[in-house]
Amino acid sequence: MFEKRDSNKKTIEELGEFGLIDHLTKDVKILQPSTIRGVGDDTAVIDAGTNYLLVTKDLLLEGVHFDLSYYPLKHLGYKAITVNLSDIYAMNGSPRQVIVGLGISSRFPLEAIEELYAGMYAACEKYGVDLVGGDTTSSLRGLFLSVTAIGTVDKDKVVYRGPAGENDLLCVSGDLGGAYAGLLILEREKAVFKANPDMQPDLEGHDYILERQLKPEARQDIVKILGNMQILPTAMIDISDGLASEIKHICKHSDLGCTVYEDKIPIDQDTYDTARSFKMDPTLYAMNGGEDYELLFTIKVEDYEKIKNIPEISVIGHMTAANSGVNLITKSGPVVEIKAQGWDHLRKQE
Amino acid sequence: MFEKRDSNKKTIEELGEFGLIDHLTKDVKILQPSTIRGVGDDTAVIDAGTNYLLVTKDLLLEGVHFDLSYYPLKHLGYKAITVNLSDIYAMNGSPRQVIVGLGISSRFPLEAIEELYAGMYAACEKYGVDLVGGDTTSSLRGLFLSVTAIGTVDKDKVVYRGPAGENDLLCVSGDLGGAYAGLLILEREKAVFKANPDMQPDLEGHDYILERQLKPEARQDIVKILGNMQILPTAMIDISDGLASEIKHICKHSDLGCTVYEDKIPIDQDTYDTARSFKMDPTLYAMNGGEDYELLFTIKVEDYEKIKNIPEISVIGHMTAANSGVNLITKSGPVVEIKAQGWDHLRKQE
Repeated sequence: MFEKRDSNKKTIEELGEFGLIDHLTKDVKILQPSTIRGVGDDTAVIDAGTNYLLVTKDLLLEGVHFDLSYYPLKHLGYKAITVNLSDIYAMNGSPRQVIVGLGISSRFPLEAIEELYAGMYAACEKYGVDLVGGDTTSSLRGLFLSVTAIGTVDKDKVVYRGPAGENDLLCVSGDLGGAYAGLLILEREKAVFKANPDMQPDLEGHDYILERQLKPEARQDIVKILGNMQILPTAMIDISDGLASEIKHICKHSDLGCTVYEDKIPIDQDTYDTARSFKMDPTLYAMNGGEDYELLFTIKVEDYEKIKNIPEISVIGHMTAANSGVNLITKSGPVVEIKAQGWDHLRKQE
Repeated sequence: MFEKRDSNKKTIEELGEFGLIDHLTKDVKILQPSTIRGVGDDTAVIDAGTNYLLVTKDLLLEGVHFDLSYYPLKHLGYKAITVNLSDIYAMNGSPRQVIVGLGISSRFPLEAIEELYAGMYAACEKYGVDLVGGDTTSSLRGLFLSVTAIGTVDKDKVVYRGPAGENDLLCVSGDLGGAYAGLLILEREKAVFKANPDMQPDLEGHDYILERQLKPEARQDIVKILGNMQILPTAMIDISDGLASEIKHICKHSDLGCTVYEDKIPIDQDTYDTARSFKMDPTLYAMNGGEDYELLFTIKVEDYEKIKNIPEISVIGHMTAANSGVNLITKSGPVVEIKAQGWDHLRKQE
């Protein structure tokens, strides 16, 4: 297997996650007439006759995506469901069913698995979806979860990552950077605890950002608000890898550039203060932290009046011609190019 | 997490895989009207309007389900697809799309992943399905695959694990025990190689059973034959855990017993000879070996004339009243109760 490598060939590390997926799927032939959209969006889109079916899958691996030393299993189960539902909402769809694959090593007692399922069922109940099957197996080491979510969307309501139109407004739901700020607090307290096991973790005052990390919600409400307002976004994606990475996706799928105003990016006070306490720029958390599971979408300029007073939606910029580039107008004035530096797990891990 | 346990509570090991799934899903509430069948069959069944949608997921973990020291990655990719398609055929359906979740550690060069995908694409092409998405991430150690397959079936053609009718004939496609015989050959040669790395593996003459283990096919042809003959099985399941385990499933879902004739169980000559060379009973391989991915199904007695001359289908017994039990009439005469002793990964692993 470990043959001599063609020196012109890139390594997995050089390709990165998105590069690897592009590389592996570039020659895919579509054989089924019902396959409307395959690899390359938040979900696959399948023609089910009267409507479109949306199917997505996310993996969560111990040691890569979560650390059980501070991650309650119930929250982990909850998150495993919501991060998948988020992909369905990002297509403007409604989730219906989930299927759960679970690998567990023998170090987990039954109670641990019950907690994990309790979290999954809590999310299913909250979002009104059914857990309809899966596969359960042992693993040699560690816990991993593979959840598949199935949703539906009216054929004329599906929203892809693009193409957005030039001048369309770029909007984001909720606030950004909180999940990453919460992660840093958890990592700090873990380090303190390791150094001195008698110390109690100091998590006080950080409820909001801890919940953003440990128990993220999916923005069902935003899809509902947009529907009620009769706004059909021109492009939409959920923010799992960070604002910068998702903006780049929308620009790529639209063959456009984009201008984003730093002072418009919504950041919660706790996120801001936490970043400052770590001597970091809060905007970096929003741009590259990831795991916020907010929705990033574009709307036509004429829809601005409808959304301008919705507190959960911020207009952060607008789409431009491709040759204008993908730029951030910083608070202090200078324009900087936006680069995707999300937490690419394939690069981060050894 | 590792709290004191209620001594009345069973452990995961005591529950076993099926017991664990029953335990975790016993209180599931169904919220979506489109959920026709959830946990407990080969696939979930979802009402898609004009037809039913079938969705299934199987996990394949390095060290649990495969050993890369003798498993070519291309074959592994192929198998990851076909074992999922087998579940779709077991519902009398047609597979349409697959979604692939892949976790890989940094020990794998790009070429290894290309091989794996080449195998997946080969299976997709052979069975006419589309690879439409997935999730790719790093793992701390090892390789694991989570494949979701999506299929469709006419609403009046779906076949569940039951209920079969009393006196219905129990039929099986192809032959059984070969995958397990192949595995034992591979394990033997691995042990020889470990003891003496200069030895070349002696796999000659075992092409058939090695392919049964390393590159199993899904029985698309059987579903087609049954359709052409206008036979709608009364129950159907694919043989992944061994004939004994699957027979028990059909009996449980039908609230019936079953009589199986040992001399009717189809076993290939190579499987037979290999079992004998290991001083084992070939019938045990068929009953408990698993991974044959043949179809086990029941048909009405009046359909016997239609299938009796199809070489790929063997009638091995018939359904009986529940109080008659689940029995094997052995070649030598005595009747023995059939017990499911399939390779329950949750018990086998430490």
